[in-house]
Amino acid sequence: MPFATLDDIRTFCRDLPGGDRRFADLAAQRQQNLTKPPGSLGRLEELAIWLAQWQGRKDPRLERVTIAVFAGNHGVAARGVSAYPQAVTAQMVANFAAGGAAINQIAKAASAELRVVPVELERPTRDFTEAAAMTAEEYLEALDTGYRTVPEDCDLLAVGEMGIANTTAAATLCAALLGGGAARWAGRGTGVGDDGLARKRTAIEAALNFHRGIIGDPLAVAAALGGRELAAIAGAVLAARQHKIPVLLDGFVATSAVLPLARLDPGALDHCRAGHVSVEAGHRDLLRELRLDPLLDLNMRLGEASGAGVAILLARAALACHAGMATFAEAGVSSTDD
Amino acid sequence: MPFATLDDIRTFCRDLPGGDRRFADLAAQRQQNLTKPPGSLGRLEELAIWLAQWQGRKDPRLERVTIAVFAGNHGVAARGVSAYPQAVTAQMVANFAAGGAAINQIAKAASAELRVVPVELERPTRDFTEAAAMTAEEYLEALDTGYRTVPEDCDLLAVGEMGIANTTAAATLCAALLGGGAARWAGRGTGVGDDGLARKRTAIEAALNFHRGIIGDPLAVAAALGGRELAAIAGAVLAARQHKIPVLLDGFVATSAVLPLARLDPGALDHCRAGHVSVEAGHRDLLRELRLDPLLDLNMRLGEASGAGVAILLARAALACHAGMATFAEAGVSSTDD
Repeated sequence: MPFATLDDIRTFCRDLPGGDRRFADLAAQRQQNLTKPPGSLGRLEELAIWLAQWQGRKDPRLERVTIAVFAGNHGVAARGVSAYPQAVTAQMVANFAAGGAAINQIAKAASAELRVVPVELERPTRDFTEAAAMTAEEYLEALDTGYRTVPEDCDLLAVGEMGIANTTAAATLCAALLGGGAARWAGRGTGVGDDGLARKRTAIEAALNFHRGIIGDPLAVAAALGGRELAAIAGAVLAARQHKIPVLLDGFVATSAVLPLARLDPGALDHCRAGHVSVEAGHRDLLRELRLDPLLDLNMRLGEASGAGVAILLARAALACHAGMATFAEAGVSSTDD
Repeated sequence: MPFATLDDIRTFCRDLPGGDRRFADLAAQRQQNLTKPPGSLGRLEELAIWLAQWQGRKDPRLERVTIAVFAGNHGVAARGVSAYPQAVTAQMVANFAAGGAAINQIAKAASAELRVVPVELERPTRDFTEAAAMTAEEYLEALDTGYRTVPEDCDLLAVGEMGIANTTAAATLCAALLGGGAARWAGRGTGVGDDGLARKRTAIEAALNFHRGIIGDPLAVAAALGGRELAAIAGAVLAARQHKIPVLLDGFVATSAVLPLARLDPGALDHCRAGHVSVEAGHRDLLRELRLDPLLDLNMRLGEASGAGVAILLARAALACHAGMATFAEAGVSSTDD
């Protein structure tokens, strides 16, 4: 286990492995010479340059792309904060295994391998309105599960989650670390009605009050107010940083899962891009706080890494252009009049 | 030639073939039963329903996807409105043929066939600041070229263009049909400098003044102020309507090319979706006027159907989910608590 204590994570985040600007510069140079007006492929150019920087390769590649979906259960579900019963988490994990979920189809369309990791579904976190969701040790175990899920040789990682009631955990995390209370962060998740939304807000406020003593400590907050699948996502994103793997984040829950890392060091997510912005209430605001500019805005709000999975297709298009296009010289195309 | 006169187009647009709402309803019903909160796949759901409606199929498919790129040359290029010399149009057509352009790579990534059609490059349109760019007959010929380019059995069509100086034609078309003059519609195209932009604005205003007598007639405007590749795009979009083929539009020029059809009948583009919104100045405004909500916003401004081509990937992801996902009943997943 690379992180035996919370302090090990803090230490890692104080001295983060960087991307390699030399390869970003080489990729940017190549983009300038390809047969198109400079910059005209917009974010596809940025993606190619970003992949070069974080893979540390002049010619970035997408041979092995992994989608990691972590599932967890939440004690706070008992507060009636979700439109679905808690049993749905395990049922959806079975659906992933059988190939019937959205992310199965998207992974196929994106030629990505899908790793679904249920994180102790039989052991929901404690109801964080009246206890710590996890101890530091439990948090580290879940984080380690996530860390070990990432293949060291993968070229791009997309992370997502499944867990009934986990938008409540995500909203509470955001409120604890960014302020604004339930009003700012509580959304309808899978589609909870007005009563459920009111219960969700009450639960968030109760949790913030109960845990007010630890609000200044990002990792203590992640353990006390998060969830096992959120901890696993943080672990996967740390593993990616260690192994030079660029990351596409999914929606509100997945992004909230790495917010504690960004609070430890603002550069902790430099190897990450937001695959999309979700419809879930707090996501756009959270991305703004993290200075992440989402690649897609498709009114999605499913989780399961579905938005990040679709964004893999953009990375593939970006690299297809980067690798396959002719330069002005090669094609005998005139440059500008200027 | 299906349209021997401009009046034939007007007649077609007065009695447009419709999509089949029954298949849209069936597809929407299926989406409600798939293992996800209803609506949570957002625009991917819309895309599946739209494809069902316009293909007239319960199970829409994307077996044959065609990207049509039309190229044309413009007399107004002599006014110094572009950052590139006119020769680049033919050079880029050669680049398309050799497989070196962005759209070649994107077509491959999207498993689409690419049809590049140079429309009389050796015969640029007349400089529309002092003459009609095309006669009605020339316009109809180009439109017919576009119409015949579309394979009757294709499942989805993406349309785009290449033509030095054609953002000047596009801006002039928009100004003529939507008002607001050069100030509203002139942008930097491939990246023209301040002097070039000033020349572009002057050319647009001169053209609007010279042709002020025909401003009320969308097809007369399309002939006098458009271009051959724009006319071909309009023809391809009409062919798609005739053959039940949904269409993804590319950027500013491609969208302006079908604006005259929308002015004939607001429903003329119901079978079209905007693949993306370009950085080119007028595109967002033009899409708003046409009530087209772009699928992608990636800061692209290349043309060549590159944005529409990337959007094909979204359609593929949408159909993968639509066809491949399990229903709640099939997967044994509980529905909502409500």
